[in-house]
Amino acid sequence: MRSFEELLTSVQNRTKNKGMKKVVLCGAEDREGLISVREALHKGIAAPVCVGQRFLIEPLLEELGLTSIEVVATNSEEETAFQSVQCVRQGNGDFILKGGVKTSVLLKAVLHKETGIRKEPLLSHTLVTEMTHQKRFLLITDGGMVIKPTLEEKVAIIANAVKVAKSLGIFLPKIACICAVEVVNPSMPESVDSAILSKMNQRGQIKDCLIEGPVGIDIALDAYAAKVKKIGSEVGGKADILLVPDIHSGNFLGKSAEYFGHFPIGGMVVGAKVPILIVSRADKAESKLNSILLGANECLGGNYV
Amino acid sequence: MRSFEELLTSVQNRTKNKGMKKVVLCGAEDREGLISVREALHKGIAAPVCVGQRFLIEPLLEELGLTSIEVVATNSEEETAFQSVQCVRQGNGDFILKGGVKTSVLLKAVLHKETGIRKEPLLSHTLVTEMTHQKRFLLITDGGMVIKPTLEEKVAIIANAVKVAKSLGIFLPKIACICAVEVVNPSMPESVDSAILSKMNQRGQIKDCLIEGPVGIDIALDAYAAKVKKIGSEVGGKADILLVPDIHSGNFLGKSAEYFGHFPIGGMVVGAKVPILIVSRADKAESKLNSILLGANECLGGNYV
Repeated sequence: MRSFEELLTSVQNRTKNKGMKKVVLCGAEDREGLISVREALHKGIAAPVCVGQRFLIEPLLEELGLTSIEVVATNSEEETAFQSVQCVRQGNGDFILKGGVKTSVLLKAVLHKETGIRKEPLLSHTLVTEMTHQKRFLLITDGGMVIKPTLEEKVAIIANAVKVAKSLGIFLPKIACICAVEVVNPSMPESVDSAILSKMNQRGQIKDCLIEGPVGIDIALDAYAAKVKKIGSEVGGKADILLVPDIHSGNFLGKSAEYFGHFPIGGMVVGAKVPILIVSRADKAESKLNSILLGANECLGGNYV
Repeated sequence: MRSFEELLTSVQNRTKNKGMKKVVLCGAEDREGLISVREALHKGIAAPVCVGQRFLIEPLLEELGLTSIEVVATNSEEETAFQSVQCVRQGNGDFILKGGVKTSVLLKAVLHKETGIRKEPLLSHTLVTEMTHQKRFLLITDGGMVIKPTLEEKVAIIANAVKVAKSLGIFLPKIACICAVEVVNPSMPESVDSAILSKMNQRGQIKDCLIEGPVGIDIALDAYAAKVKKIGSEVGGKADILLVPDIHSGNFLGKSAEYFGHFPIGGMVVGAKVPILIVSRADKAESKLNSILLGANECLGGNYV
């Protein structure tokens, strides 16, 4: 599994046999959100369930030619978030796409102790990009949820990203804990954490992956740089996952994949019982569809081809 | 001035009339450094002065066909750094390229109170990349010197970067103080600093540039994203300089320009009396030459075409 195109084919093949999974559009009074789920439906990726204010949603469904779509009617943003989560709890939805509700309102419903769908200790964001020149996926985490993770939170972020990697068929993902430097510098806590995570992996405290750090992006992605700097290990030049020190650096890197590399991107919030897709208005239609594709793939049991 | 190619032509035109400026190779027992200055010499960009251990340098000069090159003989790394700086002080060198000495040793000599060449309150790194798809320069600072700048240090970093922009013919550079968010979030000090810098610019406390922040990279570089998110101002979609919150995020961004975008890059340490070029062994030959080009351009009085 090396590209979104391959992922699409794989998901389509599976939905043909098993049927489509249901994507819950949380806040379906959102024309762009509806356009995304319409495309997902037409491509055989996922079938929508619309949650929100019926009197706003129905004219949009008609305009977009979306007939026979299930609508769960609500009266407020909070109720929309609550009902979207209940759809999942009651088996009437497989994953959630944020539409016209605030991210904070949706996450509050997801994390609610009694009525929510939290699973892991931490929710984190994993961005998936396709390095078109190398024709392979690269995961970047966390540039979307946790502002400045502690060491323990980084361990949880890694565990969440490893799950995404596995669902893409990467069974022993190579993780680079990236920094501006390759040496441990006590005045750069980022480099210290990277060293600790790498050692924890060596000692078997973090499993199902290979971790190297601190390393620069050049070493993580470029075999030549890894060779010149003589920081090889099994990760050098072949990283599947870049673990970043904070939300800003991760956000920049994800956006640079898009705006410098013109790479396709998608992303998911991981750590709930189902994928939560939080897309922004400025995201391109293609990115939104890629995210739905990632969610559908996960719900179909990942790609173990 | 929109590309390294144009910059090369411009520098060559000026050296034809004025003669070449001198680049001091600090630690010339460095085969790769010598190859870079040889190329710069052959292209009419700058003429080398070699500082270091004569018995190691001379065989390399012969091997590389570099004849009649001035060598300043030294006996230790510290002396090499000291003599390189003295070359500049005595008018026998116009800018410095780090060769086979440690960065820390070179900077110590540059910053020495009595024998150094410090000029501004702060030395900072400015990376220059060429966004080939937009055919224009983009500056990123500081991903190489200051680990976690304070607000005051960010003001100094901006001043240094503005000088580089001007030498490239960008007279009122547009600066985006980039963050993961566009709102001021007190739990993200990066967003708070960005807001303050933007306001300081409005009040005329930071001159010779237009500053906007906090903004994401998408808003800084993509007119469509700026439009959708309705965060326009004069900077949206047209940023010349990205100010990053720390060395890690800046380093990632500079490397992503190279490894995601395959953009040409070069860079300088700014704030001394002359440009200091600190290149790494893993840098490509093209990047090293671009850095020499930036240094030569600056010493030739910038490009005011």
